[in-house]
Amino acid sequence: MDQQLSIIKVGGKVLEDADALQTFLDDFSVLQGAKLLVHGGGRAATDMAGRLGIETQMVDGRRITDEKMLEVVTMVYGGLVNKKVVALCQARGLNALGLTGADLDLVRAKKRTGTEVDYGFVGDVESVHVKALANLVRQGVVPVVAPLSHDGRGQMLNTNADTIASALAGAFAETFDTRLVYCFEKPGVLFNPEDDQSVIPFLNRELFNMYREEGIIAEGMVPKLETGFESLKNGVLEVVITNVEGLSIPGRGTTLGE
Amino acid sequence: MDQQLSIIKVGGKVLEDADALQTFLDDFSVLQGAKLLVHGGGRAATDMAGRLGIETQMVDGRRITDEKMLEVVTMVYGGLVNKKVVALCQARGLNALGLTGADLDLVRAKKRTGTEVDYGFVGDVESVHVKALANLVRQGVVPVVAPLSHDGRGQMLNTNADTIASALAGAFAETFDTRLVYCFEKPGVLFNPEDDQSVIPFLNRELFNMYREEGIIAEGMVPKLETGFESLKNGVLEVVITNVEGLSIPGRGTTLGE
Repeated sequence: MDQQLSIIKVGGKVLEDADALQTFLDDFSVLQGAKLLVHGGGRAATDMAGRLGIETQMVDGRRITDEKMLEVVTMVYGGLVNKKVVALCQARGLNALGLTGADLDLVRAKKRTGTEVDYGFVGDVESVHVKALANLVRQGVVPVVAPLSHDGRGQMLNTNADTIASALAGAFAETFDTRLVYCFEKPGVLFNPEDDQSVIPFLNRELFNMYREEGIIAEGMVPKLETGFESLKNGVLEVVITNVEGLSIPGRGTTLGE
Repeated sequence: MDQQLSIIKVGGKVLEDADALQTFLDDFSVLQGAKLLVHGGGRAATDMAGRLGIETQMVDGRRITDEKMLEVVTMVYGGLVNKKVVALCQARGLNALGLTGADLDLVRAKKRTGTEVDYGFVGDVESVHVKALANLVRQGVVPVVAPLSHDGRGQMLNTNADTIASALAGAFAETFDTRLVYCFEKPGVLFNPEDDQSVIPFLNRELFNMYREEGIIAEGMVPKLETGFESLKNGVLEVVITNVEGLSIPGRGTTLGE
C-alpha cells in the first residue's frame, strides 16, 4: 500500500443546486490525500430529456435507457455535468480529469439482458482498468468520473453511479489505502426517513439484513448499501454514507463494516 | 525529439455520417506512431440546439455562444460526440481518452471581449499544458479532444477545433516530431471550390496571401490556414489539409510550408 485515496460519490440535490455544488467542491478540494470524484446527474438527465420531449421511465429507481435516452445521459453525464464539475475543480487548483468508463477503458460492462424488465442500454460492470489512472492519481490528478461505461465494442452504456464508485474503489484498493464515501442529501442511513437525527451509525451485513427485513432500510438505499458491502469485500478500508457536512467530519454518517 | 506524433483534426460531414465516421476511424486506428484526434461537431450542436428551441447564430463562420448555447456545445462536443468517438476507438483497440481543454488544464483560454461582435462564451487560447498528456501518449494512450476550453476560474468556453488542434500541435512540437492534418470533406485547398480535382498542392505564406487577395482562398479556409501557418511557426514539422482518403496517402492534399 503506498498512499491514501478517498473516492467520493456525489449525487442528488448537491448536483442540482449551483450553491450546494460550490460548497461541496470547496470541502472536496481541501480533503487531504489523493481523491477521486464520481458524480450522478439523474435529475439533470430527466430535465434535459423532458426538454427534448423524451419521456423518462424508471423501474425500481433505475432508468430505462433506450437509444434516445442513452444520447441524453451520454451528453448530460459525460458532457454537461462532468465538464462543469471539472472546470469548477480546476478553479480550485485541483488538476481534474473528467472521464467516463470508455475513457482509458476504465469501466467495461455488459449490456443487461435476460431480466424481466428491458432496461435497454444499461451496463453491468465486467472489468475495471485503473492502471493508467492510478499513475495520474499519484501525480496529483483528480479524476472526475461520470456514470457511464462501454462494452468494448463501440457501445456506450448507462451504469449506476454508486456501482461505478464501488467498482473503482475495489480496483484502486489493490494499490491504495482506499476509502469510499457516498455523499447525498441525508446525513446517513436513517432509522426514520422523516427524522434526520435518526442516523444509524454503524451497519454490518447482519444488521443490514435485519433492518431490511423490518422495512427500516428500503428502496434506493438497498442497492446503495449492497454496493458498499461489495467494496468492503474487495478490500476497501472504509465505506461511509453521509451528506456534504459529513464529508470533512470523521465519524459522521453511517459507517459500514464487517 | 523522441517520437512521432500525428495530430488529426476531423470535422464536417465525417462526424455527421455514421458510416463515414467508421471509415475514418478505421484509417485513423491503423496510422503508424502516436496519434491524437481533435474533433468538431458544429452541425450536431446546431441540430441539438434546434431540438431545444435554441436559435443558432453564426458570424463569419463562428458560433455566437450565449449561456444556453454554451450548455449545448458542452454537452454535444464534450459528451455526445466525444464519447461516441472514444467508444468507437476503444472498439478498434485504441486506448482513447476523451478530453476538453478543462481536463488536465489542457487548454486555458480567455473569454473574447472588445470585438465588434459579442461572441459570448468564446475563448481565445492563452496557454496549453500537455505534460501529463504527453506521458500518457508515450504509454500508447490516444487523446480525443473536443473543441472546448476553460478560463481557469470555473468557466467552460467554446473554442474553434482548428485552433485547438493548432495550439496542441505547437505545444507537443516541443517534445514530439509533430505533424498536423486537417481532415475535412474536400481533398485539399482548391483553386476552384466546385472542382475537387483542383487541389493546390503547396502553400506558403506568400502564395496564401496572393491567393487570398485574388479571392481564390476565402471564407472559412482563411482562419483554418492561419492556424496551420501558426503551427509551422511553433515548430510543427508538417501541416496538411486533406480528406479522409488523403489521411493515409502521403502527398495527397495541400501541404503548408515556409
